[in-house]
Amino acid sequence: MTAAGIERKQSSADLYGRRIMELSDYLAQWSETPSGLTCTYLSQAHRAVANALASLMKKAGLETHIDAVGNVIGRYKSKNALAKTVILASHYDTVTNAGKYDGRLGIVSALAVVEQAARAGREFPFHIDVMAFSEEEGVRFGTSYLGSSAIAGRFDPEFLGRRDAKGVSMSEALRESGFDPDAIAGLAYAKSDIAYYLELHIEQGPVLFESDLPVGIVTAIAGNTRFAVTIEGEAGHAGTVPMPYRHDAAVAAAEIILCVEQRCSRTGLVGTVGRLNVPGGATNVVPGRCELSLDIRSGTDSLRHAAVADILADMKGIAQRRGVKIELDELLNAVAVPCSAKLQDAFAASIERTGLPVYRLQSGAGHDAVMFDKLTEIGMLFVRCGNGGVSHSPLETITAADADFAARILSDTLGHLTV
Amino acid sequence: MTAAGIERKQSSADLYGRRIMELSDYLAQWSETPSGLTCTYLSQAHRAVANALASLMKKAGLETHIDAVGNVIGRYKSKNALAKTVILASHYDTVTNAGKYDGRLGIVSALAVVEQAARAGREFPFHIDVMAFSEEEGVRFGTSYLGSSAIAGRFDPEFLGRRDAKGVSMSEALRESGFDPDAIAGLAYAKSDIAYYLELHIEQGPVLFESDLPVGIVTAIAGNTRFAVTIEGEAGHAGTVPMPYRHDAAVAAAEIILCVEQRCSRTGLVGTVGRLNVPGGATNVVPGRCELSLDIRSGTDSLRHAAVADILADMKGIAQRRGVKIELDELLNAVAVPCSAKLQDAFAASIERTGLPVYRLQSGAGHDAVMFDKLTEIGMLFVRCGNGGVSHSPLETITAADADFAARILSDTLGHLTV
Repeated sequence: MTAAGIERKQSSADLYGRRIMELSDYLAQWSETPSGLTCTYLSQAHRAVANALASLMKKAGLETHIDAVGNVIGRYKSKNALAKTVILASHYDTVTNAGKYDGRLGIVSALAVVEQAARAGREFPFHIDVMAFSEEEGVRFGTSYLGSSAIAGRFDPEFLGRRDAKGVSMSEALRESGFDPDAIAGLAYAKSDIAYYLELHIEQGPVLFESDLPVGIVTAIAGNTRFAVTIEGEAGHAGTVPMPYRHDAAVAAAEIILCVEQRCSRTGLVGTVGRLNVPGGATNVVPGRCELSLDIRSGTDSLRHAAVADILADMKGIAQRRGVKIELDELLNAVAVPCSAKLQDAFAASIERTGLPVYRLQSGAGHDAVMFDKLTEIGMLFVRCGNGGVSHSPLETITAADADFAARILSDTLGHLTV
Repeated sequence: MTAAGIERKQSSADLYGRRIMELSDYLAQWSETPSGLTCTYLSQAHRAVANALASLMKKAGLETHIDAVGNVIGRYKSKNALAKTVILASHYDTVTNAGKYDGRLGIVSALAVVEQAARAGREFPFHIDVMAFSEEEGVRFGTSYLGSSAIAGRFDPEFLGRRDAKGVSMSEALRESGFDPDAIAGLAYAKSDIAYYLELHIEQGPVLFESDLPVGIVTAIAGNTRFAVTIEGEAGHAGTVPMPYRHDAAVAAAEIILCVEQRCSRTGLVGTVGRLNVPGGATNVVPGRCELSLDIRSGTDSLRHAAVADILADMKGIAQRRGVKIELDELLNAVAVPCSAKLQDAFAASIERTGLPVYRLQSGAGHDAVMFDKLTEIGMLFVRCGNGGVSHSPLETITAADADFAARILSDTLGHLTV
């Protein structure tokens, strides 16, 4: 494919765009909820989507199977039987009341590209495995990255004993759907067989929307520190305890919240207090206790660690100054996963050939790609999220033109990849 | 009684102190809960305490009755049948899991003083009505100042239709206890019959404790403004929405909380955010909504109004700057009730005669006294609250020496009052 072949077509979106939108709408017909889109692990809707994807892959000429954890995998084979494999993947499960593109965009884009490649008889020096991972959101069993962990050899057998809200274990749910839980451990790909892992994903944020760009190259998937924070102050009567005598847990929380915002407003960081509550709080009672969560992310671990250290030091100061006790429970300390410089450059070269500016950004959300860290080089391309970046919502949207552009970049990048 | 007769006796507490502690312990035996003290309106414990109080008053020689709303009233009669009446009062109901002194201290102190007066054959140019109000805390029916409102002619007949947590209406509860709800309206005292209203009450705060003083003279019962505040921001993914794009409702709340603290740290004010919650908050979601309460009090209405105006202006600025919507629902706007300068001075003269310093403070909590505003002159004396000022708790405490001192001041003040 020449440079001219991947020129940006804002209005036409004719090569891949219409197909991607059509496939996204098609898959969205199966939902656990009558209104909105909900497709959680091993639900009836989930099995229907897997079967639909398998049919589509077969129709496109891919060597297709559904594996023991529910992943749908279709191979576009290289003539060289001993070739390595490039994985193009994302997940087909959704959160509750989701949009149509989170996860699935990466699958249907890959499918559209491979359908077209098959029609054109394109050849690659590698197999291409289009993978639709069965579970990434962790809604039903609290097990994120389930499908990709199995392929990456990181499946945790402990997951099989977890139970959903109705008390059904994952093992039971797998067997009910005709899967063999014992076979999951054998799904892992050998490191030596994988050439690259590429994932195209909707951004889930406003950065590309605000930058007026259809795609961005992911530099890293952010590391994430999470704490549960409990502040113990001293309850008192809101009328009778003068301000200087108070040890108000909510005021201490307020200082922490502003400290997090200020410290995480530096480049490359985000910080959030998402849970916040004075348990049993009453209008006329000075809060004796306040509970909150702390979530700090960065694509650069050193930035994250420095921010966490500063915020913890500030919390210590707040506790001392206000005479309150602050307890911290670290819930998560996940390292950042950098994207391959080679794959970032390959995406960049492809974008440059269209004449559009290259934009790099980090991913604050986790993605299946993180499972392939240390197993192969990973590359991620973000697609502009409409409505100002609304995610995990029926209002999540993309344009056909953006979908088309992203798929063209993916196709062009594949054409230039060496193994 | 001479000045020498009311000398402070830190250790002996022999005239009134022991009797007050003994009566407080005696009344605390009746509780709705096996551990702790709970005595809410018209419960079995509540009726038992009323009967016990009536017996004590009769034994002291008072002309005693229990009125239609459950108040226990004992009159120490003046020889002058046409004399006006000085009311010495407080409430005998409690909050859930209460201390022994909140409310009851004012009743048993008055009783102890009048018992002693009767023994000594003291005469006064006024009748003294010792009143034990049946309900002030509003726990069962949400009707604060119930007993005192009936005496003050401010009883709201709407109260009778209110239902408790079990669905029993106040009317039904009254009839079950043998009371006639229709008779409550007739309990009001004529303004012309009342000379003064005096209430002795535990401070419920740390001011006297920190000042190392047994009693303080109340200058005013604070006015109180209350708002329910709702902040509507924009929910977002804690990883994918960069800090500059956020409209975080919890961060706006944090700014409001600190603004309230700062503005209400000026003399004569208290301000509290007692309720604080991000509904459905999650660690990985930027808060789209935050709910909080605002409670601002001052003994001086102009101070309170100025503080409320400043805080509301700051909230407007916060809303504009952060792109969030702040909704305010005013729940209360109660004016301050000043205590009579004449009665403050009478208390002060009595305290001065002991050689102890006179300390004046405002009451941040409401008291039965407010019901008598505009009906007569009101005077309130606060007694030091132990344990650093703990209130509405089984840890609430006073010393016998402080109780004795306060009762001596009450007795001496009565001896100097002119009508």
